[in-house]
Order: sequence, then structure tokens, then C-alpha cells
Amino acid sequence: MATTTDVQDIKKEKILEASFQRFLHYGYSKTTMNEIAGDLSMSKALLYYYFPDKSQLYVAVMRKLADDYLNNLQKAAGSFIDLKNAFEFQINTHHDFIAKNYNFFDFFRLNEQNLPGTIWDIVGEVHKGELDLLVNVVETEVAKGTIKPIDNPADIVALLLDALHGVRVSAASYKKIVFPQKEELEELRVKRLLLSRIFINGLAS
Amino acid sequence: MATTTDVQDIKKEKILEASFQRFLHYGYSKTTMNEIAGDLSMSKALLYYYFPDKSQLYVAVMRKLADDYLNNLQKAAGSFIDLKNAFEFQINTHHDFIAKNYNFFDFFRLNEQNLPGTIWDIVGEVHKGELDLLVNVVETEVAKGTIKPIDNPADIVALLLDALHGVRVSAASYKKIVFPQKEELEELRVKRLLLSRIFINGLAS
Repeated sequence: MATTTDVQDIKKEKILEASFQRFLHYGYSKTTMNEIAGDLSMSKALLYYYFPDKSQLYVAVMRKLADDYLNNLQKAAGSFIDLKNAFEFQINTHHDFIAKNYNFFDFFRLNEQNLPGTIWDIVGEVHKGELDLLVNVVETEVAKGTIKPIDNPADIVALLLDALHGVRVSAASYKKIVFPQKEELEELRVKRLLLSRIFINGLAS
Repeated sequence: MATTTDVQDIKKEKILEASFQRFLHYGYSKTTMNEIAGDLSMSKALLYYYFPDKSQLYVAVMRKLADDYLNNLQKAAGSFIDLKNAFEFQINTHHDFIAKNYNFFDFFRLNEQNLPGTIWDIVGEVHKGELDLLVNVVETEVAKGTIKPIDNPADIVALLLDALHGVRVSAASYKKIVFPQKEELEELRVKRLLLSRIFINGLAS
């Protein structure tokens, strides 16, 4: 028999899915709580019972997306042929994630300098998940003997992740620290792949 | 015989030097045009004749500092024993420049999200100067045969400079994109040296 909690969880899940579709297709600013309630044939009061405002709903959807992203990385763990392959997977998965969900992130672009702390917590968790996965790969590769032993794998992986994060498009002014334009994503991907290859090459020899 | 222009240039130079000392020791926000005029025994009216407001004076001092910085890099050009040495010089010179003039940059910390475009122009020029210098070193080293030929030295150097720019301190949240704290500079320097060594090692082999 379904418990109250189960029913609530299913309802929450449906709200998150409908909201994600709205945010993805119309962006955060053009989506209203009214429309989401309408999509679900749900009263506005009930929607507000689950999520007191649009930004909290957005954060909840973001958390779900981040979990899916990290699950994708986790599923691939153990299947990499070498460190280069693992970083390529990470860079490509990250690229696909941003490219596929690009409109969803208009909230980031709109509120760049003033994102709520909960969003940064999620970004931090994703970063931590990427770090853990790649540290694990480094340790595996050291054990396999494909790269030289590294004293501090976590520091080295964090250094490369920070370096990859620093990559910018050629056309950007030095000032630019904003969320990339959609048409810039491919240039960033190619540059990140190149950077990771040079870096890993530098570790190996 | 000194022309009017010479006299004006000397006066301007003195204003920039006095302002730099004030900005360096008391920071931008705690420095007043009154104090600068006082330091120079100059009327406020005359000071305002040369620089209409404090922010324009600051930008002029910044430009002078940037020129000195680029001159230091230029003077060293041609004296590097290899690419690693050149990047170490660049990273250390950059570190010393920020550390020595740390208080001067309180303007950056205070106005982080809203710096005037002229400041970003200067930052862009410095970046361009670093890029040109290091591209030159890459070309020299390729000619000497110490590194493999590179198709696109400017892209490779820009990639490493961006990567170095992305380096952050371990204690920083993922969000942090702000001007570094003074006590973080040394950690950044050490990490940047490590990153440049791995990268250059990756180019060579």
C-alpha cells in the first residue's frame, strides 16, 4: 500500500519533471508557478505547499540534474582505459550536460553575481564528485603503472580541474567571467581536451 | 629650455607618484584628492585640472604600474634558459607585483563586479604583453630544438595563461572568483609553478 510519503514523493517528482521542462524550454524568467501548476492540473496552493517559491523549485530541479550528472559519471567509473580517456569523458559529459540543458541555466546568466548559496553548494558537490571520480582513476592508473606515482593525486586532479575551469574563448575580453554563450561551448570543449592531453602527457613522462 | 609640455609632464609624473604612495599605504577608499594635493603642496584646483576625479587618477597610476610591469618582462626577454624558466619568471614576477602592491588593488576588491572599462583595457594590455613575450620564448625554444615544433604557439601560450588564471586556493569555495587574499598569494604561486611545469613537460615530450 502506498504510504503518504510515497504519494508525496511521487507528486514532488512530477512537479520537478514538469518544472524542468518549463525551465528548459522557456527559461527561468519566463516560467510562472501558475503555468507549472497548470501543466500538472494541480492547484496553485498545492504547488506552493511543496515549493514555497519559484527559486526553491529551481534549486530542487538543479539538485536533481546534478544528481543525474554525477550518476552518469559514477556509472562510467571503472570503464576508462587510461587517464586521458577519463578526463575526455569528464570534459565531454560536462559539455553535453551544459549544451543539452542550456536554457535551463538562464537563471545563472541572469543572476550571475547574486546566485543563492544553495546553488553554489550544488556546484561544489558536483565539483567534489568529479574530483573523487578522477582521483580514483589516477590511483588506478598509478597502480596499473601507466603513469608515474603521484604523491598527492587529489591536489593534482584539483589543479587540472581548476585549470580547465580557467579556459576561455579567444574572442572573450580578459574581463569575461560569465556563463559561456551557447556558441562558445564547442570552442571551450576543444580547448579543454587539448589542455587535459598536454597536462596528462606532462604527468606521464 | 623646458617647454610647457615638459613642465606639465613633470607635474603629472609627480602627481602619479604621490597618488601611488597614498593608494599603496592607505588604499583607494581611504585616500582623498585633498590629501594628494596636500602631499604635493598643490592647490586642489590644479590637481583637478590634471585629473578630474579620483578614479581617473587611479586608472592613470594603474597604467603606469602596468607599463613598469611590462617593461620588467621585456627587459628579461632573451635571457631565459628554457620555456620553464620563462614561465617561472612570468609567474614569479606577477606574484611579486601583486604582493608588493597589494593595498593598491583594494580598488579591485571593492569594485569587483563593476570595474571601469579602462581598468579592463589595461588588464587586457598586460595579458597581451605576457602573451607576446611568452610566444616569443616558445618560438625561440622551438628554433633551439628544446621543445617540439608547435603549430600554434599563441594558442598554446594563451591556453596555459588561462589555465594559470583558473588556479584557485584549496580553501576557496567553488564560487570564489574574487581578488585573492594576501595570505593566499603564495599558495597560488606554488600551484601555478607546478601547473606550468606539468604543462611544459607535456609539450616537450
